[in-house]
Amino acid sequence: MDLAPHHHPFSVWSTRMPAPHLTPVSVIGLGSMGSALAGAFVRAGHPTTVWNRTAARTEPLVALGATRAADVEAAVAASPLVVTCLTTFDDTRQALGQAVAALPGRALVTLNSGSPAGARETAAWAAGHGARFLAGAVKNVPSAVGAPDTLLYYSGDRTVFDDFRAALDVLGGDTVHLGDEPDLAALYEMAVGAMLLPALVGFFQGAAAVQARGLEVASMVRFAGKWLDMIKSLLPVFAREIDTGDYTDAASSVNLFLTAEADDADLTEETNVETAWLAPMHDLVRRAVAAGHGDHSVSALTEVLRGPAPRA
Amino acid sequence: MDLAPHHHPFSVWSTRMPAPHLTPVSVIGLGSMGSALAGAFVRAGHPTTVWNRTAARTEPLVALGATRAADVEAAVAASPLVVTCLTTFDDTRQALGQAVAALPGRALVTLNSGSPAGARETAAWAAGHGARFLAGAVKNVPSAVGAPDTLLYYSGDRTVFDDFRAALDVLGGDTVHLGDEPDLAALYEMAVGAMLLPALVGFFQGAAAVQARGLEVASMVRFAGKWLDMIKSLLPVFAREIDTGDYTDAASSVNLFLTAEADDADLTEETNVETAWLAPMHDLVRRAVAAGHGDHSVSALTEVLRGPAPRA
Ligand SMILES: NC(=O)c1ccc[n+]([C@@H]2O[C@H](COP(=O)([O-])OP(=O)(O)OC[C@H]3O[C@@H](n4cnc5c(N)ncnc54)[C@H](OP(=O)(O)O)[C@@H]3O)[C@@H](O)[C@H]2O)c1
Ligand SMILES: NC(=O)c1ccc[n+]([C@@H]2O[C@H](COP(=O)([O-])OP(=O)(O)OC[C@H]3O[C@@H](n4cnc5c(N)ncnc54)[C@H](OP(=O)(O)O)[C@@H]3O)[C@@H](O)[C@H]2O)c1
Repeated sequence: MDLAPHHHPFSVWSTRMPAPHLTPVSVIGLGSMGSALAGAFVRAGHPTTVWNRTAARTEPLVALGATRAADVEAAVAASPLVVTCLTTFDDTRQALGQAVAALPGRALVTLNSGSPAGARETAAWAAGHGARFLAGAVKNVPSAVGAPDTLLYYSGDRTVFDDFRAALDVLGGDTVHLGDEPDLAALYEMAVGAMLLPALVGFFQGAAAVQARGLEVASMVRFAGKWLDMIKSLLPVFAREIDTGDYTDAASSVNLFLTAEADDADLTEETNVETAWLAPMHDLVRRAVAAGHGDHSVSALTEVLRGPAPRA
Repeated sequence: MDLAPHHHPFSVWSTRMPAPHLTPVSVIGLGSMGSALAGAFVRAGHPTTVWNRTAARTEPLVALGATRAADVEAAVAASPLVVTCLTTFDDTRQALGQAVAALPGRALVTLNSGSPAGARETAAWAAGHGARFLAGAVKNVPSAVGAPDTLLYYSGDRTVFDDFRAALDVLGGDTVHLGDEPDLAALYEMAVGAMLLPALVGFFQGAAAVQARGLEVASMVRFAGKWLDMIKSLLPVFAREIDTGDYTDAASSVNLFLTAEADDADLTEETNVETAWLAPMHDLVRRAVAAGHGDHSVSALTEVLRGPAPRA
């Protein structure tokens, strides 16, 4: 697995000259993320063809210099490299269903979120239609596309990654190939992405609590940012504990989280902010204690999550 | 509210010379965190008296140079500044109940987690016993105590903060007084802290999924760290949206999170890792969509959390 970051030269995304020697790219799906991807290719000088189900979304990109394809098959036919950014893998196969005649010999790169199973299914589908396949994930927001530090990872056909590396690097300077199995990127996407919604809902709960006191949410941003830095600093320790299965040297124990439930109840009583969404996490903590992990590192919660899901 | 960071000179925590001109400090409660606090005071040269219910925990600190108090009242009597680090505010009042005769004139600083109500109750209790009161929170792990970048915030009697500022700075270089109301630190502690357990459980779920595939958790640490950086970069934007109540300029919409539930189900099916703890968050997303926030920024989830908690 290639985990080293690779930085592309700044010049790649500062030029706006048309550069016909650069690989032509087609971008299919121009939502928030797809539009950012297509915009980055246009700005980098790649001849860029775009298609979107709702045609109006092509307009800003055409204004920027992209070419609008009449239909999805024309979009696929236009370029050796076809990048899709639709909502799901199902949507992707459905939309490309109109373009199968043009798929043989194309390199298809998907950049939607989705499950490993969805990635495998799409890989098999692409292979069945004669396309080489790479499934990727943008680990950032649309406005970060093209920045030197932006992470994208890919898995699947390594020749696609190697052949089109210069074009892929346009989308973010930290571009990684995880392995040949097409579902690895989706696996990491889900594994890493699992922190997003919970962390955000935690922030929003805190924001509502601060507002209930008549204070500005802006006043907690610096603290919350440092808190995320702190969490980040713990991850290598937790990873080592989980990889070795040794949870005994606990800087923060499972027991430490036992009191959090009562605090949540107090917060709800005080501010009317809903904390009920945390209940299953408190339950996990109790189950970890019951399994003998009370004095162990909080990373021992992994052992409880690992098992078969209990019947509700 | 004083939000500016203050950095203390490195020399404060590199000296180990006894320095009797420094404020004597008593530390009560020598768990993981309390031991780190007491150790920082000893290393900085403060005459340090320690007490812990389980007396054995005083030993490493006595070896370092601290003085062991015979009982909690002697610990309170020994120093003008009394720092407690017990599990809860209830535990704190209970333990100090044996020391009320020594409390008049002392500056009492609590550094446990707890609710705003618990902080107010403890403030009233301390005032009733003639002590000045400051409630604080260490926004980091024990091993970070004393580092230049470590954040601690306090609220309550500003004279305690000012009179003992040099001693408090020993515990971390980013030391902030939030305001005179004694429960503000607890409010921010809970508001900011609300991200911790959810983010960690998210990481542990991801770790279990990666392991189920036979891969090392260490392989996802760099990606997860960058993901936290990304989340951190979004907080000022979300804060502005929530403060203004304008969610219409959505970089990441509520709708974008609607597909996450199906992906979770797929992940559980594939890896047997439990994702059921996320169900209430998916429910929040659906309720936000039902309330008309589908195309709004995901920070509009705050509006759903704000209301009265629904009956279960
Ligand atoms: N936005 C982010 O912050 C972000 C970050 C990382 C990853 N992602 C991932 O990127 C992917 C796209 O996200 P987005 O923010 O761009 O979403 P979006 O703004 O909702 O756009 C969705 C796109 O998919 C198209 N689409 C959906 N179903 C289709 C179908 N059956 N046939 C044809 N086109 C279809 C839509 O076409 P119409 O315009 O015709 O509806 C639109 O172009 C998602 O998997 C998302 O998880 C997004
Ligand atoms: N550890 C962290 O990472 C961390 C980070 C930030 C904040 N905090 C907060 O700091 C506080 C302490 O955490 P910790 O990690 O030090 O916990 P800990 O290791 O479990 O220690 C708890 C301490 O409280 C004492 N205690 C509890 N109930 C008591 C009572 N009724 N009477 C007398 N002593 C009592 C214990 O005494 P015995 O030794 O006799 O049991 C022990 O000294 C908590 O509020 C926690 O949330 C901890």
